[in-house]
Amino acid sequence: MEPPSLPERTRMADLAELAGVSTATVSRVLNGKHGVSTQARQAVLAALDVLGYERPEKLRSRSVGLVGLIVPELSNPVFPAFAQVIETMLTERGYTPLLCTQSPGSTTEDQYVDVLLEHGVAGIVFVSGLHADTTASTERYERLLHRNMPVVFVNGAAHGIAAPTVSTDDAAAIDLAVRHLVQMGHRSIGLAIGPGRFLPAQRKRAAFLRNLAEHLGVEDGEPHVVSTLYTVEGGQAAAQQLFASGHTAVVCSSDLMALGAVRAARSMGLQVPGDVSVVGFDDSPLVAYTDPPLTTVRQPVQAMGHAAVSALVAEINRSSAARTELLFQPELIVRGSTGPAPRTAPGPALPDADGPRAAPRHGAPAHRAAG
Amino acid sequence: MEPPSLPERTRMADLAELAGVSTATVSRVLNGKHGVSTQARQAVLAALDVLGYERPEKLRSRSVGLVGLIVPELSNPVFPAFAQVIETMLTERGYTPLLCTQSPGSTTEDQYVDVLLEHGVAGIVFVSGLHADTTASTERYERLLHRNMPVVFVNGAAHGIAAPTVSTDDAAAIDLAVRHLVQMGHRSIGLAIGPGRFLPAQRKRAAFLRNLAEHLGVEDGEPHVVSTLYTVEGGQAAAQQLFASGHTAVVCSSDLMALGAVRAARSMGLQVPGDVSVVGFDDSPLVAYTDPPLTTVRQPVQAMGHAAVSALVAEINRSSAARTELLFQPELIVRGSTGPAPRTAPGPALPDADGPRAAPRHGAPAHRAAG
Repeated sequence: MEPPSLPERTRMADLAELAGVSTATVSRVLNGKHGVSTQARQAVLAALDVLGYERPEKLRSRSVGLVGLIVPELSNPVFPAFAQVIETMLTERGYTPLLCTQSPGSTTEDQYVDVLLEHGVAGIVFVSGLHADTTASTERYERLLHRNMPVVFVNGAAHGIAAPTVSTDDAAAIDLAVRHLVQMGHRSIGLAIGPGRFLPAQRKRAAFLRNLAEHLGVEDGEPHVVSTLYTVEGGQAAAQQLFASGHTAVVCSSDLMALGAVRAARSMGLQVPGDVSVVGFDDSPLVAYTDPPLTTVRQPVQAMGHAAVSALVAEINRSSAARTELLFQPELIVRGSTGPAPRTAPGPALPDADGPRAAPRHGAPAHRAAG
Repeated sequence: MEPPSLPERTRMADLAELAGVSTATVSRVLNGKHGVSTQARQAVLAALDVLGYERPEKLRSRSVGLVGLIVPELSNPVFPAFAQVIETMLTERGYTPLLCTQSPGSTTEDQYVDVLLEHGVAGIVFVSGLHADTTASTERYERLLHRNMPVVFVNGAAHGIAAPTVSTDDAAAIDLAVRHLVQMGHRSIGLAIGPGRFLPAQRKRAAFLRNLAEHLGVEDGEPHVVSTLYTVEGGQAAAQQLFASGHTAVVCSSDLMALGAVRAARSMGLQVPGDVSVVGFDDSPLVAYTDPPLTTVRQPVQAMGHAAVSALVAEINRSSAARTELLFQPELIVRGSTGPAPRTAPGPALPDADGPRAAPRHGAPAHRAAG
């Protein structure tokens, strides 16, 4: 059995090693002494937490206020990732974060806002909320601004609402994904997006149509866009339709959709990336471990969380936060779900004994899509 | 472009289809009419949310109170899964959940409790908190009970604290994993667990030692247990050590650890499951998509979340909740990371031109581990 509590010296040495500071510094921090940099203090507290030790009572500091953080749901792993980053940064600034999560049929954004206001929050961060829904009323946000409630939006600006907004540049994301696929010879590329009323979906769609026109000379790109839900099942349904109509690559609007697209390909007897390529969006924590590891466009979650919290704290302190939308540049992370276009389009999975890859049909391309 | 808002009839039909009710029922719910079952109403609201429509103002109901839900962090996907289930069920009972998440160096459990008490929560659910740390003081929970604050624990009982507790049966989880591996011929099995001060780790260790003795006649199982952290890196470090000492299978205490174990195997030139087998724990949302898909022991998150919320609501209503620990039975989900034991032990990755699988060395087993 491991001893229930380690000897004092081992514990100090472990903490010092993990925090990258001297044991003397660890001792100063644990005893609440002054003369330690904020950074070193934070590193020791983090090491204490990582190793699972309880923090000494005297190290507890008083919260300077509550901040509400409203996210749509936790089943898409990008939302826990945003929540974790924003929560950590709020705490570093002395605030206590209250995370409000939604799921179908549960507490709504407006209900959460009511509760947060009742409890005197200092500000609210909205991640992918109704601010991103172009059909939702923006009155709810006007009311908040009218009350001088500091508000920051993540991913999607509410039309006409002057609040700091931090978004991934959706157009740049699509540029990266399409250019990557075109460079590998794909000529028939589809886009699977979420419900069309959301601003990020509209931006992705517009950028995609522009890309098809520029790179592939497609005049009417609409038939190459399928709008479903952001889930695995949504991606599967969209990709099934796109692969069946001869597309060799699908750009998805979430990693979950991309996993659904891989599943759709396999159910049609297609190999990823041998027959068809799939690009995700988000770069959620576990997608490097999937089969195949997903090629995806990474949202800069860390940088965006940092900017959102800085803007909120500036708003709370009535200093000048830019009440405009800041667009953050995504990165293409190339892993195993994309590859060169097959020499023949896969087409619908025909009950053909040769299988979709065996018979090169040069001169008879099934490229219904682009060209 | 998709129209920003669908025609009314399509919308009703979509909602009815998704909710599995008639359009007449959808209409009754949307117009706040009576004579609709709670179940049907909930299904329509869920469909509204899934399709991303805004809920009509009149459908908003008043919260009966706040409930705090404290989880350790969101980077292990099992915690967002617990949070999502508990949050949904609290909302169904009319409560507004406030999710308090921690990360190394950020707000602590005690700080969150202070904030929640200040804001008059009706109760608190602790998931894998300090109640599970056998070295942490239980005084914090005594204080809560003394104030008659309803409290429920998930995964790990605080010693001497009479509160409803909902845990996965760790011993049963280890029984399932070891039996599966023994049936496939593994004789040299290791266990990678989290820090030894946590009750679930202690329970897993004890069950593992009992299993080694019963199934493999190992008298001193301690050398087959490595205690690290619950992360990918923790699992990688533990598995590296276990594979290097000749183990052909590793049982992990989280799915993240199991992904780390797969990574360790590959870095040593070992195939999973050809050379070594890996079992995870949790059955987190995405592990069915990993390479290989993880064989894992599923925590019954849905059933546990339901029980935790029922117990909390009973405590809030001063009705008789059982103030004891309920153990929930886990399930073994067999996927692709486990297979028959190799005919020779893999041993340390020798700089052998034949590679670890090529040379059958019958009669000279490298089974340092089990007998």
